[in-house]
Amino acid sequence: MKEVYLDNHSNTRVDERVYAGMLPYLKEFYGNAQSMHSPGGRAKEAVEKARRQAAELIGSREDEIYFTSCASEANNLAVKGAAQAHRNRGKHIVVSGIEHFSVIHSARRLGASGFDVTYLPVDRYGLVAPDEVRKAVRSDTVLVSVQHGNPEIGTLQPIEELAKAAHEKGALFHTDAVSTAGTMPLNAGELGADLLTLSSSRIYGPKGAAALYIRKGVKVTPQIDGGIQEGGMRAGTENVPAIAGFGRACEIAKSEMKSNFGRVIRLRDRLISELPAKIEHLHLNGHPEKRLPDNVSFLVEFVEGESIFLFLDQKGIYVTSGSSCASKSLKMSHVLSAIKVDPALGQGSVLMTLSKYSTDGDVDYVLAELPPIVKRLREMSPLYGYFLKTGRRRSAGPGTDYAHAQLIS
Amino acid sequence: MKEVYLDNHSNTRVDERVYAGMLPYLKEFYGNAQSMHSPGGRAKEAVEKARRQAAELIGSREDEIYFTSCASEANNLAVKGAAQAHRNRGKHIVVSGIEHFSVIHSARRLGASGFDVTYLPVDRYGLVAPDEVRKAVRSDTVLVSVQHGNPEIGTLQPIEELAKAAHEKGALFHTDAVSTAGTMPLNAGELGADLLTLSSSRIYGPKGAAALYIRKGVKVTPQIDGGIQEGGMRAGTENVPAIAGFGRACEIAKSEMKSNFGRVIRLRDRLISELPAKIEHLHLNGHPEKRLPDNVSFLVEFVEGESIFLFLDQKGIYVTSGSSCASKSLKMSHVLSAIKVDPALGQGSVLMTLSKYSTDGDVDYVLAELPPIVKRLREMSPLYGYFLKTGRRRSAGPGTDYAHAQLIS
Repeated sequence: MKEVYLDNHSNTRVDERVYAGMLPYLKEFYGNAQSMHSPGGRAKEAVEKARRQAAELIGSREDEIYFTSCASEANNLAVKGAAQAHRNRGKHIVVSGIEHFSVIHSARRLGASGFDVTYLPVDRYGLVAPDEVRKAVRSDTVLVSVQHGNPEIGTLQPIEELAKAAHEKGALFHTDAVSTAGTMPLNAGELGADLLTLSSSRIYGPKGAAALYIRKGVKVTPQIDGGIQEGGMRAGTENVPAIAGFGRACEIAKSEMKSNFGRVIRLRDRLISELPAKIEHLHLNGHPEKRLPDNVSFLVEFVEGESIFLFLDQKGIYVTSGSSCASKSLKMSHVLSAIKVDPALGQGSVLMTLSKYSTDGDVDYVLAELPPIVKRLREMSPLYGYFLKTGRRRSAGPGTDYAHAQLIS
Repeated sequence: MKEVYLDNHSNTRVDERVYAGMLPYLKEFYGNAQSMHSPGGRAKEAVEKARRQAAELIGSREDEIYFTSCASEANNLAVKGAAQAHRNRGKHIVVSGIEHFSVIHSARRLGASGFDVTYLPVDRYGLVAPDEVRKAVRSDTVLVSVQHGNPEIGTLQPIEELAKAAHEKGALFHTDAVSTAGTMPLNAGELGADLLTLSSSRIYGPKGAAALYIRKGVKVTPQIDGGIQEGGMRAGTENVPAIAGFGRACEIAKSEMKSNFGRVIRLRDRLISELPAKIEHLHLNGHPEKRLPDNVSFLVEFVEGESIFLFLDQKGIYVTSGSSCASKSLKMSHVLSAIKVDPALGQGSVLMTLSKYSTDGDVDYVLAELPPIVKRLREMSPLYGYFLKTGRRRSAGPGTDYAHAQLIS
């Protein structure tokens, strides 16, 4: 059976060259990077090489890169770490309503320990307006955190402007760039971010490594206390193979970004333009132009995303119907709620994230397999029956219909 | 050149079988364990299998095992997480003075946020007396944390009694069992621990995985907030290859513990008995009998451990002169300070940790190479010259000598 993996926002296939580069550190060079003997030195070299490679990807200094075990940990370090380090200046933070859970739940945790949290509204594309940041930031605001690109709906934020708005009143600015760092050109300094999260497993590197860029001079309180690793910012034995792999993945991403970027966008745009021609009542999530190069996110009316997902799985097509980190019982994601999708419609979310391995053949396969699945599901759907009979769309709210105007495209 | 790796408390060589078991999850089964599609399911199965294997190693339930990225993270989760979850009951914690930095610095971090921290004294062997726990625990004490086996001096604590003493007054008990879980028989329930840390890279598993045992019903506040991984206790994409490898390492450790245990002890005892016969003024650190099976820790009088270390490195013998997580500029470790070693003597610390790969040939090589190195270093040592001339030992304190009675064996 043909297999088409379109869940690349959750995880990517490790590049063969990354894999090959990791193996020596799994096997013969097993020293602890903090040990001063020769095997330790070898491990240390690998970590420092990776730090250079990650820095080069985002145009930062080497000593601004701090490795963590995953992007969630890096987001925790950014949000809680910056807030805690500056708590004497103020106890207010601002995050957008469509952040990754590792940012939102970090904000909530701070909220439970005496911080005040403002959640920024977004428009129907998921965009945060710089003026909303200006309105939200107060004299006691220590941090604003807005994701660079949203993995679920694909929208790219105007980070430079948002960072500027935060800085105007002296707040720090963090951006979760997991979906962008390594998939599109990005320079941490030009973005104006004080803190920026990047991930290995999103860019064909292994699981077990991620990094937080901390602009030189910005104070952050460590979240994992202990040894002196990562300049005292993150204790724990360095995961040398994963970090070495992450570094190599950054290097490859940088050198091959230009060719991958255009090719992936072309495949994305094929799906975005050709699927609605084959499936009626399909609505693109997120912004049509300000969009991640690899993100295809649709609401399919009158069916459940989970059912589509299961039928696609049987065909070897692997997609998601929301964030892989969200609770499996959650019916509609917080991102779709924030862009005010009607819950009835939100059930029909289908998210496909392309990769550098994706081909026209993959797109053709999806274009062939998805329409008949939706057709079959709609034939069984009472919501679709109601629509055919009345021309109206039944809302999830009791006894109400959602207006077509609520649809986000 | 022959190579003898004796820094196994810092890191062990990954077992070939563990390595082989990890590769599929690095390569073809790259799904995110939280994704509901088939590749995700495969990853999830690997994580849950590893959970069973880890649980079997320490005789716990599967749902009492929570994976983390490293033992330092698990110790942070135990100490800060338990303290924070029970802060309404009291804000006092108790830790021994010879804990790993990830425990001690977590305690300090709590101290900075309003907790009161008591550091338990140890005797000259590094033993914590149960009565010291009884004296330290108050009505507002929420947690006592004492390491099972100290990696630097090898001493094993009477954990059952210490846990009992903590429980008498209603405090929770955590033990950092990184040096024992997988190297000697251990049952979390029988030890009486409410929380217990175990590590992969200490038992021939890969870096990037560790676990915290949390006894069913014990409340702990997550330290990495975000997704629903690990039952909401630890957000972040699971490091599937590392966790799978850790599980396999637990399984192998359990099945081969009996044979490794006796063999390693025999090699340890050869070094402990034969080295002092070849090198004068050698003093064993830690308890002679209540001791980790793989730990050989000596103070070598009149020389610097760092010099020994460097000369041994040239011979392909890899040891340490302290904790691999401690600052490299630190002259004497906090563990040696706690057992009241004179700083002059503490410079001469040499730590060798054996592994299941260690052989009699390795021991013979150390016995052949170490004595001439010490001899040469002493010939250059002013402290040794002073001793030969006066019969007295110069202390690090100004103008004082340390008494022979201060020597710990």
